[in-house]
Amino acid sequence: MTTSEQFNPAEWVIDHNDRTALSIRIKGDRLFCEQSPYQTVEVFDTCDRGKMLTIDRMVMCTEADEASYHEMLVHVPMLTDFKIKDVLVIGAGDGGTIRELVRYQNIETITMVEIDEVVVRAAKQFLPTISSAFDHPKLKLLIDDGIKFVKEAADHAYDLIIIDSSDPVGPSEGLFTKSFYQDVYRCLRPGGLITVQSESPSFNPKAFVELNQCLKQVFGNDQVHCYLVFIPMYPSGMWSLTYCSKQGAHPLKNFQRDRAITFAQEQNLTYYNADIHQAAFCLPTYIQKMLNEA
Amino acid sequence: MTTSEQFNPAEWVIDHNDRTALSIRIKGDRLFCEQSPYQTVEVFDTCDRGKMLTIDRMVMCTEADEASYHEMLVHVPMLTDFKIKDVLVIGAGDGGTIRELVRYQNIETITMVEIDEVVVRAAKQFLPTISSAFDHPKLKLLIDDGIKFVKEAADHAYDLIIIDSSDPVGPSEGLFTKSFYQDVYRCLRPGGLITVQSESPSFNPKAFVELNQCLKQVFGNDQVHCYLVFIPMYPSGMWSLTYCSKQGAHPLKNFQRDRAITFAQEQNLTYYNADIHQAAFCLPTYIQKMLNEA
Repeated sequence: MTTSEQFNPAEWVIDHNDRTALSIRIKGDRLFCEQSPYQTVEVFDTCDRGKMLTIDRMVMCTEADEASYHEMLVHVPMLTDFKIKDVLVIGAGDGGTIRELVRYQNIETITMVEIDEVVVRAAKQFLPTISSAFDHPKLKLLIDDGIKFVKEAADHAYDLIIIDSSDPVGPSEGLFTKSFYQDVYRCLRPGGLITVQSESPSFNPKAFVELNQCLKQVFGNDQVHCYLVFIPMYPSGMWSLTYCSKQGAHPLKNFQRDRAITFAQEQNLTYYNADIHQAAFCLPTYIQKMLNEA
Repeated sequence: MTTSEQFNPAEWVIDHNDRTALSIRIKGDRLFCEQSPYQTVEVFDTCDRGKMLTIDRMVMCTEADEASYHEMLVHVPMLTDFKIKDVLVIGAGDGGTIRELVRYQNIETITMVEIDEVVVRAAKQFLPTISSAFDHPKLKLLIDDGIKFVKEAADHAYDLIIIDSSDPVGPSEGLFTKSFYQDVYRCLRPGGLITVQSESPSFNPKAFVELNQCLKQVFGNDQVHCYLVFIPMYPSGMWSLTYCSKQGAHPLKNFQRDRAITFAQEQNLTYYNADIHQAAFCLPTYIQKMLNEA
């Protein structure tokens, strides 16, 4: 039996809005804290989820749960039948997305644009299993503004663009706008794909619905596919990612299931498997309605 | 930007273990509080999830999220091809499981055994949309100990038994034991089905794994099928249910998909649809390993 009175918030890191909060218990001293020009970056050691990176006290990742997010963001587009050679990643400062991308021999170049070098530095120092691929020869890491980068990037330069952003407050706010996605669209080759961190239908319903509308306006209604991932250490535990194509591969009709089965086994993935690839696109009816009736 | 210091726990109901906590903001005064012989039953009004029932400060349901749980507990077994006439429900004091069961014409009798009349009374008074079927003519509601009830029940009396329990502390502890499930098995007709609230792989990993092992011992390894539901207002948001059969219908191979599509539309269900029925059984790889390596 537990009561509010027994709960001492001093030992907990709390990620909350004004209606719901997720608290994760920490142990020992805070490992890292630095105020960058953009945000406060911190690393904690949790009681049972490993090390945890937060930005402005919003959970970015924990060692125990990060694979769910990073695997689903990367392997869903990579295991369609579209040939992907050149990848652009916006955000992704902890490095988990890069770690998943470098599993693929067919990728030739990865350009990553992260605005805040403090996030990269904190991840390199305290989250070595997540940031393990920052020295990979295929990676070109730029500390720069992703919005400005895509505005200035050449047309048709990338096969896959991954927008691995934090929530739409602070420096990530511009990553949730139509003008940004119009630039993203322009930079994609014909048939190119994107995957996007698209917020929680429960914890951030407004941002979730608005981003989906924005993506439909840019890519077309039938080219935008929302999918869900269980991430217990994000508030509500129900997080969405969104897959879009530039008139290209459908995430299920063009899914290479046999290749996915082999790949997931050989790579010893944690969350992703061929069944989950397909299941993640099956949305509860009320979430379908949120998106279709918006 | 938020910090722990700005978080005032007095306005929040907090469901937590010693490592993770989910807090739900409440408004106004507590609507109901009664200490029964078994537990403390309370009803609150939340800021955005509607009314909420808690037992010993563990969230049982909120009006906004309860359909996810109740629909998945009931419609998954009901939409296989096994003919179900007589149903036994253990627990389920809020009434949501009964509300879903009475949608089926083919069900002839529903026997519900809830140990604590206070839960039923609180639900009737404050959660009318959940407790709406307590007066249904097919329902026989007994306030009694479910463990004792199944011990004394006749062999082969039920086609479907639903164990809709709270967590394995207090009066529900005995609902997580092998001897209870041996009685449940005996009371099932040949081919009979059960569905069980089987805890969170993230928030209660030990109870989750142990209950799965227990069910496999009683029903046989190939008759036990775990499935997952997003329930944002339960800690971690990732909750499991388990489907078992007495050498009967497989939840996917014997799934009546066309009937499920029609049923979900006609009944205007909130979470359940035919795709979700199938998707819910696709488990992330690490959860498969938790169950297979236990």
